[in-house]
This record gives sequence, C-alpha cells and structure tokens, in this order.
Amino acid sequence: MIGIVGGVGPYAGTDLLNKIFNNTQANTDQEHLDAILISMSSTIDDRTEYLIGNTEDNPAHAIVKVLLKLEKAGATIAGIPCNTAHSDQIFEVIQSELKKANSTIELLHMINETVAFIADHYPKVTKIGVLSTTGTYKSKLYASALQSKGYEVIVPSLEMQENSIHPAIYHKTYGIKTTSNPIHPQARENLMQGMAFLKEEGAEIAILGCTEIPLAITESNINGVITIDPTNILARALIYKSNPDKLKPL
Amino acid sequence: MIGIVGGVGPYAGTDLLNKIFNNTQANTDQEHLDAILISMSSTIDDRTEYLIGNTEDNPAHAIVKVLLKLEKAGATIAGIPCNTAHSDQIFEVIQSELKKANSTIELLHMINETVAFIADHYPKVTKIGVLSTTGTYKSKLYASALQSKGYEVIVPSLEMQENSIHPAIYHKTYGIKTTSNPIHPQARENLMQGMAFLKEEGAEIAILGCTEIPLAITESNINGVITIDPTNILARALIYKSNPDKLKPL
Repeated sequence: MIGIVGGVGPYAGTDLLNKIFNNTQANTDQEHLDAILISMSSTIDDRTEYLIGNTEDNPAHAIVKVLLKLEKAGATIAGIPCNTAHSDQIFEVIQSELKKANSTIELLHMINETVAFIADHYPKVTKIGVLSTTGTYKSKLYASALQSKGYEVIVPSLEMQENSIHPAIYHKTYGIKTTSNPIHPQARENLMQGMAFLKEEGAEIAILGCTEIPLAITESNINGVITIDPTNILARALIYKSNPDKLKPL
Repeated sequence: MIGIVGGVGPYAGTDLLNKIFNNTQANTDQEHLDAILISMSSTIDDRTEYLIGNTEDNPAHAIVKVLLKLEKAGATIAGIPCNTAHSDQIFEVIQSELKKANSTIELLHMINETVAFIADHYPKVTKIGVLSTTGTYKSKLYASALQSKGYEVIVPSLEMQENSIHPAIYHKTYGIKTTSNPIHPQARENLMQGMAFLKEEGAEIAILGCTEIPLAITESNINGVITIDPTNILARALIYKSNPDKLKPL
C-alpha cells in the first residue's frame, strides 16, 4: 500500500493522491492501487519557518510520527508532497529517526526523483529554472541537487523571491495556502513574473518547486519553457516502485 | 480525527477531503483539521453491481474493514463519499457489523445529511430532482428519504437513466470513472440533458446524487435549478460535528 504524508500542506496531500490515480492504468475503481493519506497538519510545524530560523522545532519529528502511523496501517512505500521537507536539515533527521524506530517503509525523495526524471526525459537540457518557497530557495535544495548533476541553475533574484514568489504561496490574502479555490489572480501574476524571469535568463525547464505552485500554473509549457511538477513525478515514482505494470505511459 | 472511506470511487475520496479543507476556517496549514483517508478500491466491489443483482458480494463487508482501520488509526467520526453505499441493503449491514465489532466511530449518513440540509436552507422548496447511478435510482435511495419528508421527487425516465445518466458515470470511453481529467464532453452533455429534463418537470433543486456528477457539473445553479452536491454537505457535517467553530459560514 502507498502511504502519503498529508498536511504539508493539506491540498498537497490530496493533489499527490489524485496524481497517483491520474497516472494509474485503471478503467474501474477496483483496478486502482491501494493508498492511505494521513493529514495531520496541526502537528507539523511550517517547514520554511524552521529553515529560515524562525522556530527551533524541526518538523521532521512530526513527519516521522505520520510515517510510522502510515506504516502501522499497512503502507510499505511513502512520499512526502512537500519540497521544503526534503532539505537535508529536515529529511536527514526523518531518515535517521525512521531507522531508530526500525521502520522498513521505503521513503522516496521527491527532489532526487525529479532530477532523475529530467535527466531521463530531457537529456539535452542544460539550464534549469526553479520557483519555490524562500525556505527551499535559501536551503538551495534543487540548486544543489541539479548542480551536482552538472546543470546550470536559474532562480529569481532575492528581491523577487521575497516580494513576489514567496508571497504567491504564503500571503495572508492572495497566497495559495489561503486561497486556492479559485487561485487569486495576484498569486498567478506573481508566479508568471517568475516564469518570465526564468525564460529571460535562458531556462529551458522550470521546476515548480513548491507543491502549491502547480495549482496556479497548470500549463505543461509556458512561452517555450517546459514546466515540471515534482508532485506528478513523485506520484509516478510511487506507482512504478509499487507496481510497474500499473504506470500509465507518458 | 475525521476518517474517510476512500476508493468508492478513488476520486470521490480526495474530493471529500478537499471539500473538508475548502469548508474549514483556516489561514495556515496548522489550522486545518486532522483527517485520514484510506483508499482500498481493489477490495470494495462495485455498489451498483450489487444492488442490481449482478454480484452477491455485499460491498458492506469491505467498507467495514476500512472503517475499522480508520478507527484504529485514530478516527472518531467518518463519512463514506459514495451515495450508492447508503442504500439500506448496504448501509444497514455496515452499521450492524460495526456494532458487532464494538466500534464507537460516529458514521454519518450522507443522504440524511443532504435532506436535512435542504430542509434547513431551502424551506420553501417542494419539488426536488435527483441524478444518480442506476443502483441509487433503482434502490430509490434519495426518493424514499425525500418522500418521507413530504417532497415531490423527480427522476429521469428509466430509458434516459440507463442510456444517458448511468453511462455518463460508467461508460468505458467517456464515463467519469474512466475519464475525469478532463471530463469527456459526452459525459457532461448526458448529464446536462438530465438537468434539462428535471427542470422541465418542475424541479427547483437537483441533487447530484453520485459523487462523480459534481466533477462534471460544477455550477451551483443551472437555468434556475439549484444544484446540491451531497459530498460538500457531508464535508460540512463532518467539520460541524468534529469542531463547529471551524466550519466556514456559507
């Protein structure tokens, strides 16, 4: 059974589960894969607040509790649909605590899956842009993973990151975490400015590196820049590693 | 914690959970309610197939297993986002098996919640239409619940039900269970024919009585007929009975 750490944020959990269904070869309800999602958002502190030093509570501990609950309920493989949770300061603590608890759940790494997917499917691409929260931006989560594979990485200026991209996700009025049904036009506009910046700087691919961003940018290509949704890649990896015959071809 | 019996169908589970998030007063991830969704579609036989006599396996038994799993993981209240599963032949078996297992989980009844919501919010309405699967149609699930409260009930002719409404959900090519992202235009057209029929017959409200239908009919009102999405009503009832302060006003 596939396990999903929901609540980081709440809609990212259901988005991952829907993407698992979307990418599964199934014509009836009964042909779908079994999955369990636990959304305990109240217990998991904000990942960006931890990474930028505004709180000392590492959200890793609460995430591990959810993973162990998923495992107890029957999950054998799991994913966390939150980019920021994959920064080393959080993810390495998750891994070491799972080990201490003698967990055997197979926890996939969304960022590494995304970089591997790009290398497999777009072998000629060299310049990759990333839009993300400020937590992911400052921890250089995608930047390090991409640079270690030889990619040139393009990100917004710090000014654009703090005044435009991060607020598109977190702003109390128009941010996607507050208002996603429908998306506020200001959130979309801020992110589209980010996309235009990445294109100007020569990006061939843009990684939508926060699970909220693909709710506002649903196109697979914007002005010639291919958009990559890591949640979709994680969904495909979870299916492939559970039951490869069930993975829909691209 | 709120429990959701997913997998009936898979997208109905995530739809209910999203509707819980949509109807919760929350500005941050941490302000959302805790929830758990178990989607074990492979184990739960088709509800309509059972009601129309094509199989003798009552899906109630598999649904009870999911409910007990939810309770073991911490759920205290639960909902099943499948109208057909609320027919007496299925729901009464679920209730009696939960009792036998000494379960204390509070299981809401989506159809009764929907009828109560209409009585509360639309006190002057007398004629109510219903679109549903053929299982729900033949078991007169909504019809009985509505008639017992004095409403006049309008449903499609049997011919329209079998050749147009049921296929919009189940057809192997264009049915919503096969193709929902995006919805096939034929599924939408069939359901819109159903809506036009209900209007002609004088319906003031149309209950979208299969969880797949609101994926194709998202308007709150079509040509003056108010549409009611029972999944949204169930979501609001789950929030209200867990934590009334968290329910967003309509």
